[in-house]
Amino acid sequence: MAFIKPSVPKGTRDFSPTEMMRRNFIFDTIKSVFRKYGYQQIETPTMENLSTLTGKYGDEGDKLIFKILNSGDFFSDAESKKLKDESFEYNSKSLLPVISEKALRYDLTVPFARYVVQHQNDITFPFKRFQVQPVWRADRPQKGRYREFYQCDADVVGSDSLLNEAEFILIYDEALSRLGLKDFTIKINNRKILSGIAEIIDKVDNIIDLTVAIDKLDKIGLDGVIKELIERGFTEADIEKIKPVILLEGSNTEKLASLRSALSTSTTGLKGCGEIETVLNYIASCPLQTAKLELDITLARGLNYYTGAIFEVKTNEVAMGSIGGGGRYDDLTGMFGLKGLTGVGISFGADRIYDVMEELNLFPAASNQSTQLLICCFDKKGEQFALPILQQLRKQNINAELYPAGAKLKKQLEYANNKHIPFTIIIGSDEIESGLLTIKNMETGTQDKCIPEQIIGIINR
Amino acid sequence: MAFIKPSVPKGTRDFSPTEMMRRNFIFDTIKSVFRKYGYQQIETPTMENLSTLTGKYGDEGDKLIFKILNSGDFFSDAESKKLKDESFEYNSKSLLPVISEKALRYDLTVPFARYVVQHQNDITFPFKRFQVQPVWRADRPQKGRYREFYQCDADVVGSDSLLNEAEFILIYDEALSRLGLKDFTIKINNRKILSGIAEIIDKVDNIIDLTVAIDKLDKIGLDGVIKELIERGFTEADIEKIKPVILLEGSNTEKLASLRSALSTSTTGLKGCGEIETVLNYIASCPLQTAKLELDITLARGLNYYTGAIFEVKTNEVAMGSIGGGGRYDDLTGMFGLKGLTGVGISFGADRIYDVMEELNLFPAASNQSTQLLICCFDKKGEQFALPILQQLRKQNINAELYPAGAKLKKQLEYANNKHIPFTIIIGSDEIESGLLTIKNMETGTQDKCIPEQIIGIINR
Repeated sequence: MAFIKPSVPKGTRDFSPTEMMRRNFIFDTIKSVFRKYGYQQIETPTMENLSTLTGKYGDEGDKLIFKILNSGDFFSDAESKKLKDESFEYNSKSLLPVISEKALRYDLTVPFARYVVQHQNDITFPFKRFQVQPVWRADRPQKGRYREFYQCDADVVGSDSLLNEAEFILIYDEALSRLGLKDFTIKINNRKILSGIAEIIDKVDNIIDLTVAIDKLDKIGLDGVIKELIERGFTEADIEKIKPVILLEGSNTEKLASLRSALSTSTTGLKGCGEIETVLNYIASCPLQTAKLELDITLARGLNYYTGAIFEVKTNEVAMGSIGGGGRYDDLTGMFGLKGLTGVGISFGADRIYDVMEELNLFPAASNQSTQLLICCFDKKGEQFALPILQQLRKQNINAELYPAGAKLKKQLEYANNKHIPFTIIIGSDEIESGLLTIKNMETGTQDKCIPEQIIGIINR
Repeated sequence: MAFIKPSVPKGTRDFSPTEMMRRNFIFDTIKSVFRKYGYQQIETPTMENLSTLTGKYGDEGDKLIFKILNSGDFFSDAESKKLKDESFEYNSKSLLPVISEKALRYDLTVPFARYVVQHQNDITFPFKRFQVQPVWRADRPQKGRYREFYQCDADVVGSDSLLNEAEFILIYDEALSRLGLKDFTIKINNRKILSGIAEIIDKVDNIIDLTVAIDKLDKIGLDGVIKELIERGFTEADIEKIKPVILLEGSNTEKLASLRSALSTSTTGLKGCGEIETVLNYIASCPLQTAKLELDITLARGLNYYTGAIFEVKTNEVAMGSIGGGGRYDDLTGMFGLKGLTGVGISFGADRIYDVMEELNLFPAASNQSTQLLICCFDKKGEQFALPILQQLRKQNINAELYPAGAKLKKQLEYANNKHIPFTIIIGSDEIESGLLTIKNMETGTQDKCIPEQIIGIINR
């Protein structure tokens, strides 16, 4: 029998012990910050009813949802349908609802909305929840884009206080600082400011065209943006009016003052400015550890659903897309019939954060997740001598291993090296006789003589 | 537009914050014990190629695998096939391989075997890995049986030392003790002993019939077992020979002595006895914390793949099936073409352990995962006063929340109660003026006057 070398489906990944240690470091850090701010973890099933997901992500999104084949004789319903109705055609579109009723989670937001509606009577609002689970998308895989990847989301629903927005800025600052990032920017904007800009030129219906053009300022410069605006049907007069908005400069306070003056005729625009000011005031009373906070009115992500604050986080140390984002939406649960529940949320891009940390060499060399000591021995006598010492160390919460007797010492030490185990002890007949052990620091090469009770002190030194 | 109350697919579950806290307590405890014994975490993708999974779980198992519909125009390949070959029939069996090439993980063992073969050149053997991930089975859902559930597995491959078996017993003992279980039994058997029993009556081919009958001893007693053995074609003479084996009594050492004498004509049987003795000797030198260790020759799980040790764990405090199990298999990776790699592994039944702990009230009331302090305030002034205090506490790793200004105090305190937050501070105008706060223990009702710097001392008291 010939075997094909086994592989994983394209766009999916195995995670090795080293990768898992690093991923856990990222996830554990983010989770502990979420918890520190009062967010509670939930989990939802990998599979949702197809009806829960369909129509929530647009036509393109619907195509990218992985559908699950009904179990058992999945085609029999299609056959009955055909028997009853000759005109029923066997094609992908008509068969899909007949042979599939479940699908893989596409993001964490829709399942969260479904969760809130389903469990609304058991939930205390404001509900501050976080969720760290994989999602699946039938996207074309490419560098940095996977078909299975984790999302790390925190959302609060049922509170319109801008304190929540401020706290998300603090959460980004604390989590990314703890991961070791030294230079990153949290960009903040407000959907109402974007609406205001469209209002002052009386082009409310063209807000998408407007923001798509403005968003390119970084890439194509003012002249490019103006050219694009004209192509998209904006007039010279429009452009004169919004130019000061596009070219905002100075501190956040200075930008806000210019905005207020430019948007003075738009109630919505001024409301957006007021919201930004409130958030900035909160932050003024609790200084950020590392993050730069920047009002950036070119930021226009999630315009289809965000109604207030919009966030995006970028590292300034490495060329990389955004490593986080979020915003406020006034109607998360409306899609499931529960109206008027406002929410605001953020997300960390764990895979990108991983790549940034790898490039900057920010992962700790070892962690409390790895083995700290390997005991090597030659024979059964060595094992019997070592086992109680080993258990004593484990009782004191040292991660320790005993290499089973029988292997050559070289192989045992290779094992320690490959697993990056920092300390080894070799048990030979001398050690058994004298009770005096030699503990070796595998990195420095230093050796210490000690009795078993002293091992823990040397490891923790 | 009418909305149907949203729900999750049958056999799947949402996990609320309280449930997550408890599940995390179980998983974190088990993981930390795995790590203490030198096991390293890996993760494999949720989806595997259908060819990786098919044929590994028997015909019944294959039916229970959830298949994923190919994305895009999934039916077009079937249509082309039909065009080329009129006799191609549209039915579930012939369509499955055409419209689906991926499936959801059914257990952690087959993906692990695939992982080992795929990454064999990067792995240091013996490879001690653990894996805690959900699996999916299209089983009929019923009480305690779900279509999505977590498995917690640890396996070592590439080492035939029985030290590994002994360490798994220590791992069960430590993890379950730390979860608070006070009376549980780790049952151990050896496939070679079962083979030996079949050998001494010259019925090697009937080993399944034999073990199925013996396995029922607890339920149907000796007479029942004898009746069943005769029904299954065993003779009176056979039964005379194996009766002493079925009726083993006394300590593990006494049982082993009786077994040795009964199995004296079977080399395999004696080898099994020797293996059990070696494991017992290891354990003798490192006493178990809580577990009873019991040689139980009626234990016959996984007979199709286990070749040496067989484990099963049962709680004696609650009526419940096994809460863990495992064994040694001599050929894990043969199915993917890598022969001769021996392994041994165990699994914790997390869902059942959850139920046991709930019934015995073993979950800690609070945990470091919950909010420890809620600051309540009445207005923006209160918020501004509270925010720096809040951030100071968070800096010292206290999980703390500030309820956004504007809500009635009753609602804020209800929030604290529902979230089981143990301490509250109310910021009114007096507090802002004097800087003197009142911190209330929500459980005892005790109130303390303090300045902000003293809060942490009171919380940690």
